[in-house]
Amino acid sequence: MKNIIEAMQWRYATNKFEVSKKLSDEQLESLLEATILAPSSYGLQPWKMIVVTNPEIRTKLQEAGYGQPKISEASHLVVFAVEKHIDDALVDAFIKSVSDVRGIPLENLAGYAGMIKGAIAPKSEEERKDWATKQAYLALGVLITAGAIEGIDVAAMEGFDPKKFDEILGLEEQGLETKVIAAAGFRASDDPTAQYKKVRYPKEHMVIEVK
Amino acid sequence: MKNIIEAMQWRYATNKFEVSKKLSDEQLESLLEATILAPSSYGLQPWKMIVVTNPEIRTKLQEAGYGQPKISEASHLVVFAVEKHIDDALVDAFIKSVSDVRGIPLENLAGYAGMIKGAIAPKSEEERKDWATKQAYLALGVLITAGAIEGIDVAAMEGFDPKKFDEILGLEEQGLETKVIAAAGFRASDDPTAQYKKVRYPKEHMVIEVK
Repeated sequence: MKNIIEAMQWRYATNKFEVSKKLSDEQLESLLEATILAPSSYGLQPWKMIVVTNPEIRTKLQEAGYGQPKISEASHLVVFAVEKHIDDALVDAFIKSVSDVRGIPLENLAGYAGMIKGAIAPKSEEERKDWATKQAYLALGVLITAGAIEGIDVAAMEGFDPKKFDEILGLEEQGLETKVIAAAGFRASDDPTAQYKKVRYPKEHMVIEVK
Repeated sequence: MKNIIEAMQWRYATNKFEVSKKLSDEQLESLLEATILAPSSYGLQPWKMIVVTNPEIRTKLQEAGYGQPKISEASHLVVFAVEKHIDDALVDAFIKSVSDVRGIPLENLAGYAGMIKGAIAPKSEEERKDWATKQAYLALGVLITAGAIEGIDVAAMEGFDPKKFDEILGLEEQGLETKVIAAAGFRASDDPTAQYKKVRYPKEHMVIEVK
């Protein structure tokens, strides 16, 4: 396994994927499991990953993604979608899960449930989705880093029509809304982008130290 | 170095940090460097990290963070702030950086600059900040994962008053706005939270496969 800095230096916004090179089941499991382990606000995990391998669907998604080839060519396409209905029922489901995993009676978790519901209550529907979206982006950061560590290319993309993605994947009916996507797989040996020098602002620009 | 799954299983939302145990300079550098390497939309990096070690400032920030002890007790506090003014000047600075690093004449990057400016133009100030905030959360995901890999505890926090943080840190004048924070350091051996079983929805709940 690479050192974390080597790993993050090695990764880049892969533009051309090797079509024939697929993630193994173990590699996919590792990426998904690491991402599911991402923390989220209160632990609510208000997002899901739709992992698309179906070629016909991938072709349709590519059309809804301004024709970007990696949408269909990368080994796997991971669509991050957030819950449209962030409400008391969502909190109750989570609290039930805490109760089950930790063996704590539900009544002992009533205070925690009330606190989360109280935090959500004043937010509008849009604010709730924005908040869920931030949790999904945090998870995307975990996916990208996990990929880098494991030598798997993960390219995040915001350039696509989320409404069309929802339609193609039937997410509306599942109470989900597409927010960001990532292509995962392996860089093509002739991806010219791989040769570009990485552009990052230096630490002096990105970090302010308050000592 | 741990396997990525072991690392993500090992980490948790640390509640009590060991006050006397500090990150080494190398550990801090590694975390910051990995996070700066996080990708961002178009590569714009519209956020900064304010790394606070000053004890008096930490005490003030703790007050603005509902008294949570980890704000002052963890080795380092990392405040993620986004650029308030995401405009053509920000794009031009980025394009200059691309030109410098890659040795490409500025005029050859005019098309790319125009594309980014065109993407930003229709967005309101709030939409621009929301978009920057998502990039900051992605970077926070990288920080958390890098910490886990290196055996450093990183606990993300949303429960604080961002306006007070901006005041205490003088961010307004620097054109920055606090969005999310993270305590970094080492768990106290008697943190009861460390014993809690991790609660995550199973893969069947979090992943939809479209084959």
